[in-house]
Amino acid sequence: MSLAPQPDQTDQSNQPTQTDQWFDLALDLGATTPLYRQIADQLIAHITSGALPAGTRLPPTRLYATRLQTHRNTVVRAFDELARHGWIASHVGRGSFVREAPGLPLGPGPDTDPFDPEGEDGELRPEPEAPRRRAADERAAMPWSRLRSRAIESEPLLRMQRLSAPPADADTINLARMQASLDLMPHEDFRVCMDHVLRSLGPEALSYAPSPGLERLRVQIANELGRTGIACSPDEILITSGSQQALDLIARGLVDPGDAFVTEGRTYSGALNILTISGAEVLAVPGDAEGPEIGALEALSARRIPVVKGVYLMPNSRNPTGTSISARRRVELVAWSREASVPLIEDDYGADLILDPAAPPLPALRALDPEVFHVSTFSKKLIPALRVGFIVCPPTMRGPLTRMKHAMDLGTSAVLQHALAEFLERGLMAPHIAKVTAAYRERRDALVGALRAYLPDAIEYEVPSRGVVLWLSLGDLDPEVVYEAAREHGVVVSPGSVYSLGAVTPNASRSDAAKGASAAGLRLAFCAEPPARLVEGARRLGKAMDKLLSRRYSARRTELFGA
Amino acid sequence: MSLAPQPDQTDQSNQPTQTDQWFDLALDLGATTPLYRQIADQLIAHITSGALPAGTRLPPTRLYATRLQTHRNTVVRAFDELARHGWIASHVGRGSFVREAPGLPLGPGPDTDPFDPEGEDGELRPEPEAPRRRAADERAAMPWSRLRSRAIESEPLLRMQRLSAPPADADTINLARMQASLDLMPHEDFRVCMDHVLRSLGPEALSYAPSPGLERLRVQIANELGRTGIACSPDEILITSGSQQALDLIARGLVDPGDAFVTEGRTYSGALNILTISGAEVLAVPGDAEGPEIGALEALSARRIPVVKGVYLMPNSRNPTGTSISARRRVELVAWSREASVPLIEDDYGADLILDPAAPPLPALRALDPEVFHVSTFSKKLIPALRVGFIVCPPTMRGPLTRMKHAMDLGTSAVLQHALAEFLERGLMAPHIAKVTAAYRERRDALVGALRAYLPDAIEYEVPSRGVVLWLSLGDLDPEVVYEAAREHGVVVSPGSVYSLGAVTPNASRSDAAKGASAAGLRLAFCAEPPARLVEGARRLGKAMDKLLSRRYSARRTELFGA
Repeated sequence: MSLAPQPDQTDQSNQPTQTDQWFDLALDLGATTPLYRQIADQLIAHITSGALPAGTRLPPTRLYATRLQTHRNTVVRAFDELARHGWIASHVGRGSFVREAPGLPLGPGPDTDPFDPEGEDGELRPEPEAPRRRAADERAAMPWSRLRSRAIESEPLLRMQRLSAPPADADTINLARMQASLDLMPHEDFRVCMDHVLRSLGPEALSYAPSPGLERLRVQIANELGRTGIACSPDEILITSGSQQALDLIARGLVDPGDAFVTEGRTYSGALNILTISGAEVLAVPGDAEGPEIGALEALSARRIPVVKGVYLMPNSRNPTGTSISARRRVELVAWSREASVPLIEDDYGADLILDPAAPPLPALRALDPEVFHVSTFSKKLIPALRVGFIVCPPTMRGPLTRMKHAMDLGTSAVLQHALAEFLERGLMAPHIAKVTAAYRERRDALVGALRAYLPDAIEYEVPSRGVVLWLSLGDLDPEVVYEAAREHGVVVSPGSVYSLGAVTPNASRSDAAKGASAAGLRLAFCAEPPARLVEGARRLGKAMDKLLSRRYSARRTELFGA
Repeated sequence: MSLAPQPDQTDQSNQPTQTDQWFDLALDLGATTPLYRQIADQLIAHITSGALPAGTRLPPTRLYATRLQTHRNTVVRAFDELARHGWIASHVGRGSFVREAPGLPLGPGPDTDPFDPEGEDGELRPEPEAPRRRAADERAAMPWSRLRSRAIESEPLLRMQRLSAPPADADTINLARMQASLDLMPHEDFRVCMDHVLRSLGPEALSYAPSPGLERLRVQIANELGRTGIACSPDEILITSGSQQALDLIARGLVDPGDAFVTEGRTYSGALNILTISGAEVLAVPGDAEGPEIGALEALSARRIPVVKGVYLMPNSRNPTGTSISARRRVELVAWSREASVPLIEDDYGADLILDPAAPPLPALRALDPEVFHVSTFSKKLIPALRVGFIVCPPTMRGPLTRMKHAMDLGTSAVLQHALAEFLERGLMAPHIAKVTAAYRERRDALVGALRAYLPDAIEYEVPSRGVVLWLSLGDLDPEVVYEAAREHGVVVSPGSVYSLGAVTPNASRSDAAKGASAAGLRLAFCAEPPARLVEGARRLGKAMDKLLSRRYSARRTELFGA
């Protein structure tokens, strides 16, 4: 490594001698140090030794990945770390360069995080410049990068950040946000309920709530569920801070690090995040038009190690596809679950959001089996700021999960639970649901009409009969490229790559077909914008796609016939 | 492996031929499969092949560890897995045996949980009989006891349940509850703030909050902290659902399973719970009158394995003792932290609850070092139902912790954050603090006076100058026996055993002295009852102790002189 490569190498052809030096890295697959960190450490060593002087352009991550026989994401992660710590600077389209003053403080300073997650479902907002230390700190820097846990550095969390920046300005149309637009919020009813609670209960409403949640709220929820065919007692219900915490609780209650958890090939990104954080190995099960394939589930659970601790499913209006699991497949899933001793986790975030009243009713998994964890929330159908969700627990799991919940946060806010219970007791939910489903139906129809009008013919989608999202199959267009192009055209969408772990988890059992299917699409949400803006969003998206396709067409033509 | 060892081998001497067969395991250090699982898999293979028939006693884990040149914990983990899954049974003192019907589900039935946690700080309430299924369910039972994680079954959670039942009736006096009595709750001010927020902001108050928390609230908190000597920017603050979630976040952000985390010998039970759940090995550091001993911390951090990821401290009005760490020790702690590269977590739940205004001011650890995690909450000093706490993060940790928080629950309720910000902006906090500290001072004095009057002379305590708890040193009385006797006399206290992990975590480094000191006491909280009931509580407690002591006295006399 004494021969330094030329700074700012402009010749991009393969130059074996020089690139071999850049690539003078050795990965130790048996080490406990993660591969990305091994790469980063060795590049830092080359930079500090002078082997890679300031200004040197590093070869593309793709080449590193090929040479090191590792996944490109691993190299991207290493580069991200180096950039975060000030060793290299990356410029889109130009590549990554060794920085002038490499490796300055890993402690406070450049090791700040320019983004912070924001809002629902992974929206992120650029953060004002992080505060720099007033005066130079003489003390030894705290080595945060080696103190952080694997969980907090996990790939899904970083990816969400990269792919979920919110709209830059008010003109940008948001087809990514899974939150009702403000005009659909029942704020006045809620204000009246809250005021009544605080006036009538006074300080009692402000105490700690019982850990399983308020009895009056659990009674209301059990009643609501009864109307949808789920017979349960209030004593089987555990109140949580939204369904997100419900999933966290269940994951922590079941998963020991290294256990397996199964999801569909495409699934809710928040579930992938929380399962990854729990230390589970997340396995994707292939599916067909009706739902997950039972044969594939049998194959997964037949392997004794790792133990499969659960299957996470969204039977109704799946996020991100908007489709539902068939009634027949639900029955088969429940039978398989008991046979294989693998619990099912049913996330019914979109309960009641039925857009086509004529659609055939589908039984909840929990209605078919009391050993199913049934998770739902009032965030999507009522008020996000409530942060009230719940689990209908398998009876013997309610006690242990309640202990865990108590240990995690001493219980969900009593005053919010009282206000929600008041809202339900006054019978305000049914009219609210009628109002929002009518609005969502109108929005869905507006969006679908505009997609028909503006999207290239190659793009396919299914019209959802429930929920607030639909899925565009992109064929051979790269979802992240479409996502970027759409942003440039003033519309934000959700690229398919956040809905599967793709190649991040090395797992031989995952079929490549399932992987491909996962990524090649976009999710469009039609709840956060009024109909006119949805139509305009579809027009902009179509324009972005047309541009990508025509660019590709001319590239192919050049390839075939010359410029 | 064709020669099977003798079932239930009773000769414990080293028998090379046979043990070599038991040890016929090969570890692949380069594999992605964890070592413990490699061991477990190979033992399962030997069991199913018949090489290790039912009844065979396995050699001790220590021997396996020596032969395999791996850590004993790895083998223990493998054995735990095998036991959980029914392949082997372990009996303390006798060893581990291959089971008769290996690998069968452990089954439901008695696997129910009779209690549910309830209320603050570990109060628990017996649950009505868990609802049994209406009709016999023909399907295979779900084997929950082997599906549950180690975290949810951890000893501290179970112990809290056993020792934290709330008072049986209204006459019982509660010296266990760390929540202000209802007359100190600022419910009318809060109602006005909440109503203003909902009227003036309307639906905006009901959206998802930004993941780091509302800017307006973070500005207020930064201002409040500035007044107490902690200079921080709103961008270093992360809003959490109470300080309990703050601790959970930090633990998850730092701890990989098997890492160590240090606490004082006696510390907040909720911290012990959350650290245990995170998979940390919790180490207790011995202390003196000023605080944790620096020499002992140096010894802990000098060991490279396990890596110490943090030290959890409550410098002010420690829970459970009510004492504070000296100013000098604080400076030493911060210097050690930087030197050893071990972060400090400062839990200042009782900030502002200064009962003796003349007491010398103590600098926050965070005021001494920006790399300290400073955690606090509005639950204790304002309103429990707010469930709003915060972390002042080391600058480079705010981004990663925010991502983690977002993954866990999509953010803390916006409407509660708005209402709290409104409360702070209106300047209502200072008068509220003045009111409650005056009340707590009066309550402390009433309790201390009554303890002097009613408690046996052998019982020692220190009068706290901050916070809402004090600690009774019981000498050679057993705290759990006193706890039970007190309940019988109509007063609930908190036995010392919930404030240390005691012998639960096998840990050679923990001094037995520290263990003993941890357990031999009771915590009394004087915030939840008015002065007159505190006095009556002390009288009942004294009566219970007198009875125990006189019973013991007569037992000794009988022993010495005969009946």
